[in-house]
Amino acid sequence: MRKLKFGMVGGGNGAFIGNVHRHGAVMDDLAELAAGCFTRNPEKNLETARQWGIQDESRVYANYTEMAEKESVREDGIDFVSVCTPNDTHFPIAKCFLEHGINVMCDKPLALRTEEGIELKRIAEEKDLLFGVTYTYTGYTMIEQARRMIAAGEIGKILTIVAEFPQEWLLVQMVSDRSDQATWRMDPKRSGPSGCCADIGTHVEALIGHMTGLKLERVLARFERLPKDKQLPLDNNVQIMLEYEGGISGLIWSSQVAIGNETDLRVRIFGDKGAIEWQHRDSQRLFVTRINEPVQIYTPTRDYDTDSCRSLSRLPSGHPEGFFESFGNLYKGFCTALLKKKYGEDRGDYPYPTIDVGIEGLKFVDACLKSSNSGNIWVSLD
Amino acid sequence: MRKLKFGMVGGGNGAFIGNVHRHGAVMDDLAELAAGCFTRNPEKNLETARQWGIQDESRVYANYTEMAEKESVREDGIDFVSVCTPNDTHFPIAKCFLEHGINVMCDKPLALRTEEGIELKRIAEEKDLLFGVTYTYTGYTMIEQARRMIAAGEIGKILTIVAEFPQEWLLVQMVSDRSDQATWRMDPKRSGPSGCCADIGTHVEALIGHMTGLKLERVLARFERLPKDKQLPLDNNVQIMLEYEGGISGLIWSSQVAIGNETDLRVRIFGDKGAIEWQHRDSQRLFVTRINEPVQIYTPTRDYDTDSCRSLSRLPSGHPEGFFESFGNLYKGFCTALLKKKYGEDRGDYPYPTIDVGIEGLKFVDACLKSSNSGNIWVSLD
Amino acid sequence: MRKLKFGMVGGGNGAFIGNVHRHGAVMDDLAELAAGCFTRNPEKNLETARQWGIQDESRVYANYTEMAEKESVREDGIDFVSVCTPNDTHFPIAKCFLEHGINVMCDKPLALRTEEGIELKRIAEEKDLLFGVTYTYTGYTMIEQARRMIAAGEIGKILTIVAEFPQEWLLVQMVSDRSDQATWRMDPKRSGPSGCCADIGTHVEALIGHMTGLKLERVLARFERLPKDKQLPLDNNVQIMLEYEGGISGLIWSSQVAIGNETDLRVRIFGDKGAIEWQHRDSQRLFVTRINEPVQIYTPTRDYDTDSCRSLSRLPSGHPEGFFESFGNLYKGFCTALLKKKYGEDRGDYPYPTIDVGIEGLKFVDACLKSSNSGNIWVSLD
Amino acid sequence: MRKLKFGMVGGGNGAFIGNVHRHGAVMDDLAELAAGCFTRNPEKNLETARQWGIQDESRVYANYTEMAEKESVREDGIDFVSVCTPNDTHFPIAKCFLEHGINVMCDKPLALRTEEGIELKRIAEEKDLLFGVTYTYTGYTMIEQARRMIAAGEIGKILTIVAEFPQEWLLVQMVSDRSDQATWRMDPKRSGPSGCCADIGTHVEALIGHMTGLKLERVLARFERLPKDKQLPLDNNVQIMLEYEGGISGLIWSSQVAIGNETDLRVRIFGDKGAIEWQHRDSQRLFVTRINEPVQIYTPTRDYDTDSCRSLSRLPSGHPEGFFESFGNLYKGFCTALLKKKYGEDRGDYPYPTIDVGIEGLKFVDACLKSSNSGNIWVSLD
Repeated sequence: MRKLKFGMVGGGNGAFIGNVHRHGAVMDDLAELAAGCFTRNPEKNLETARQWGIQDESRVYANYTEMAEKESVREDGIDFVSVCTPNDTHFPIAKCFLEHGINVMCDKPLALRTEEGIELKRIAEEKDLLFGVTYTYTGYTMIEQARRMIAAGEIGKILTIVAEFPQEWLLVQMVSDRSDQATWRMDPKRSGPSGCCADIGTHVEALIGHMTGLKLERVLARFERLPKDKQLPLDNNVQIMLEYEGGISGLIWSSQVAIGNETDLRVRIFGDKGAIEWQHRDSQRLFVTRINEPVQIYTPTRDYDTDSCRSLSRLPSGHPEGFFESFGNLYKGFCTALLKKKYGEDRGDYPYPTIDVGIEGLKFVDACLKSSNSGNIWVSLD
Repeated sequence: MRKLKFGMVGGGNGAFIGNVHRHGAVMDDLAELAAGCFTRNPEKNLETARQWGIQDESRVYANYTEMAEKESVREDGIDFVSVCTPNDTHFPIAKCFLEHGINVMCDKPLALRTEEGIELKRIAEEKDLLFGVTYTYTGYTMIEQARRMIAAGEIGKILTIVAEFPQEWLLVQMVSDRSDQATWRMDPKRSGPSGCCADIGTHVEALIGHMTGLKLERVLARFERLPKDKQLPLDNNVQIMLEYEGGISGLIWSSQVAIGNETDLRVRIFGDKGAIEWQHRDSQRLFVTRINEPVQIYTPTRDYDTDSCRSLSRLPSGHPEGFFESFGNLYKGFCTALLKKKYGEDRGDYPYPTIDVGIEGLKFVDACLKSSNSGNIWVSLD
Repeated sequence: MRKLKFGMVGGGNGAFIGNVHRHGAVMDDLAELAAGCFTRNPEKNLETARQWGIQDESRVYANYTEMAEKESVREDGIDFVSVCTPNDTHFPIAKCFLEHGINVMCDKPLALRTEEGIELKRIAEEKDLLFGVTYTYTGYTMIEQARRMIAAGEIGKILTIVAEFPQEWLLVQMVSDRSDQATWRMDPKRSGPSGCCADIGTHVEALIGHMTGLKLERVLARFERLPKDKQLPLDNNVQIMLEYEGGISGLIWSSQVAIGNETDLRVRIFGDKGAIEWQHRDSQRLFVTRINEPVQIYTPTRDYDTDSCRSLSRLPSGHPEGFFESFGNLYKGFCTALLKKKYGEDRGDYPYPTIDVGIEGLKFVDACLKSSNSGNIWVSLD
Repeated sequence: MRKLKFGMVGGGNGAFIGNVHRHGAVMDDLAELAAGCFTRNPEKNLETARQWGIQDESRVYANYTEMAEKESVREDGIDFVSVCTPNDTHFPIAKCFLEHGINVMCDKPLALRTEEGIELKRIAEEKDLLFGVTYTYTGYTMIEQARRMIAAGEIGKILTIVAEFPQEWLLVQMVSDRSDQATWRMDPKRSGPSGCCADIGTHVEALIGHMTGLKLERVLARFERLPKDKQLPLDNNVQIMLEYEGGISGLIWSSQVAIGNETDLRVRIFGDKGAIEWQHRDSQRLFVTRINEPVQIYTPTRDYDTDSCRSLSRLPSGHPEGFFESFGNLYKGFCTALLKKKYGEDRGDYPYPTIDVGIEGLKFVDACLKSSNSGNIWVSLD
């Protein structure tokens, strides 16, 4: 069966996420790495390419512009590029590849500014290219189950949504001798004007949208930089009231200073006939309650799961899949869509977050920032 | 050893909370029930009295005024009264007993209006009487451990507080044939102008205050009546941003329409050196994390617990105590304080929520209501 | 409504279990304490009586023989006696009260030797008296739910049973400065020839029998005294293979040296159509799985619970009951049975462990001891 | 950096485990797939080879004998072979590759008979070859943490070990329309004379040995085929008492008919100074209790973890790794050992189960079978 060819920009600097992209992309044998510009360090660039199995060293590029140019004219040029560089470079890189007619799978966030995201979308549409954004958590198997159950009305009409994403790393790294969380996350020039909200709050916002299909209309946000006396440059603790279409309410708390929490995204969706809860800490289990019934614990690959949920598992019941595989599911969605579009091959149909989700994320951060800076007032997303 | 004598107003109507007060009050042999006015139904009043062991039927009263009058002049009159009637009657009853010089242990809320609470406090002070309010959750054993650890600086300086109290009963009762949740909870005349916020939001607010000692200064609240098309009379889903003294932030979500949740109060307090988490669903365990260390699970009666925590357990490790015993701990605090004050007996020193906590609770609801009705703006508590 | 009168032997020595019996017996207003012989220390005996509300001091006895004699001839003599003295005295005390025609509720174990248990049964039958044994864990609300579901065939035909009761106290007390676990538990003269198996293994055996109704036929047991070099006098770590009627298998592990475990009884019953799991650490939740379906979490007082389960709850959903209330449920069963038998009053029908359960427990320990001492061979219970 | 070349026998028949081997082997860029004989179906064989990225189709073999012959003489022949065929073929295949001088990584069990295992070991030693057996669970990150803590004496002297491995699949597949658990697991000709004990009991035995370093000396086992009336050919519910060197006791229950359990291996190791617990259902957390202290929850990649534990994580804290990555860790151990041995390259030193573990596993099953067939007597492993 045909495999897509892809290239990577980034991934050679030792940040874990590059490796996650790589494994995610090849996991289901839908794509193979054919080209790359992994880091500006030429030696390390080549070493990464070799280690990751690129046979043809002429496809290891010193910069992304050259890569876009050359790959776009090769007969066997890459079908798509994965962008997993620091946040402030996503926009120019993605733009460059789009302009050269190459589909893009971009790490989150899409860009630092909403206008940039909109521009990318415009180009992608003009060039008729696919553009995915790797909102990781939407790739978890049980999220697909939740999404389908909600769409099928199993919890009734949605009443309210409560979500959180607490982390502790920002405090922990201050006392740890082995801190590897990049300092760029606390640098507004590289991260953009928001820290916690842009970094993890957007994961929550995207996940809610993915699970419910609801459009977010307004937010009321409160950003904090804790501890207050440290004069930190970016928000690291964020409370957000949300209003979705139809006046449905939501609440998000995300934090990078919540000791005792590692990567503990949790979403609870309450309807008038039932409720669904998922938390990343226990990612293989979905808590489903139908009104006046016991809580039920759904797991992957079971007869009671939807076909679309089951199709995302690679292992039998009770064999845990994790973060790599959730990335794999995003790439599965992107690659199968691309195989169908570009080559007419039908290899299934799986969800993945598109550029629209990325733009919503940017608008969300804009609105939250504006709300927080204006004394916590309601701010519309448009 | 001396036992206090107490009377009860309410409790004969079959509501569970009367029985909880009764058992809580006598559990540690600090008090015995000597008088009562349990219900307006004379037969049931007498039957309750007999069942609950009142020997002298002349001390079973047809109304609380008579009870206050007669008990206040008997040589062996009651030392205190427990008020466990519906919310709208707490104020006149408590007032009457105070005016007759009798100490009061009142179910929460203290009153429907803040002015009433303040008036009760004025009288109690004038008459030099004790006045407790049964904010149940402050009585749990592990809450005492948390309170002491926080006071001792074990989690450092508090950064933010995240709490919630989701319930599902309001939706469940609509489909259940055995609903026993009193309809008065949805009647503004009897419950006051707030439903969920006054009923359970205040439990959260009081518990945070109890655990941290922090004074709440401002709130930004959003009340909802869900499902929206049902035109319900009172709020049943509430989101509140909080600001404590020193600018410390908090967040509360409480709900009566959150399917899958029974009585699931949960409080998380994050400091710059550690964090503490407690949830009612698992009330015998306290999750304590010191920065950069593993999460630890504290349980009652252990060597590592504070003396004050250990003194609240009646059973050896691993033998669960529950809701009755948390009430018992409130009465233990109240009764030992009264024994000391009235009779000079020292039987230990345990915390219990005073009328000040009750007044704070009323102010909290006032401010939240005002915020919610004014478009979710910040409202000061004073 | 009529209340039974009861007396207590034991409870004045500060051991927690006496207080648990007392509260359990009166919790539902079915009985009141009228007489007692709480301890051999006369002062403490009287003090306990006063504290526990005995009005008539002539009913505070210096020894149990006198108590049995006098109470058996009073017109208003006690309806039953609660025996909560050390294990080695259960037999003579229970026997004495039976011989004086007084019903008995006895702490577990019934006696130290099987013959003694059989003799007690003979007398109880001759005198037509009720005899209950307080196997605590059978009193938990969700156990009743489990029992009824199993009886109704909801998990199909039982295939195998896996249970455990790990504790850590025996090791912990060696390093704790506050050890209150009585040393008599390690004294064969007072505990009988088995330690852990008799103390907690029997709780497991009784609970399985209660939940399933299955008759235990054979055991293969292995007793250990750990750490081996300490030369401890009694078993404290026990593994037992079980064979129930129809060849149904079981497995029990119980231990007093299992660090990290407080009182962690857990029972899992596997059928060919489903499975049920309960653990004491989370006593208000029952895990129920129907074949090929998600695990479900049952809680008390819900519509989906059986009437008999619901009738054992005193509080609404989500308000935890615990160890005291499980004792209360045993006494509820015993007292309602006695009210019906003695006075013809029908106040409901609740389960409680009878003397037959106590005798089975003694036979179980006998057989396990014999098996362990004979090189771990199968030993029949009869 | 050099990559090892490896071949695979098996994996083309759609069984999930082949894919797990493949991903595990390449995950850390220590090896690349260069040859294979994936299935007897020639078309599928070639298709698998292409899909899995084998460039040179001359290295796709019709049978394993040919593969062993040809690869052993190529200059660029494979460094090792992964054997992931059905159990009954492990022995001849592994033997063939050993005889041709090729190192072997074999799925578990090593063989069906102990003599076969011993023969393989003999050949491997003669030829000076590495031989690993993929006991999956030994590869989990937190197992390495446990192993090191136990070795460092953090839980003191081991007193007893309690472990279990319940599954439900055998019952579930009878009612499921999508059963994919191969029927060969119930065929003695293909599985060998034991079902559940050989299939999953050995995982438990190997994991205990790996974590503690203790040598197993004797077993007393009871095998069942449930439901009894089905006349099933192989054991599916197994209870085993164990005796390790120094008289240390253990207990294993494993089952394939335990409804509500998917792949729920759990090991608890109790020492005189502490205890350690791990369960597969929550594989990223290790429960550690030091005597008289709170339970602690260890997670991967933390400062408090040992270097050897941290070196096995590929992701930052809170990002779950799972089954694939545990296989990856086994291959990491095998490949680094092979790189060192064959090429003198030092790429770290990680544990992996050797052929000795595989032989112990065979002896363990032999002894258990003998015990069970002889009326549940103690049987020595040698």
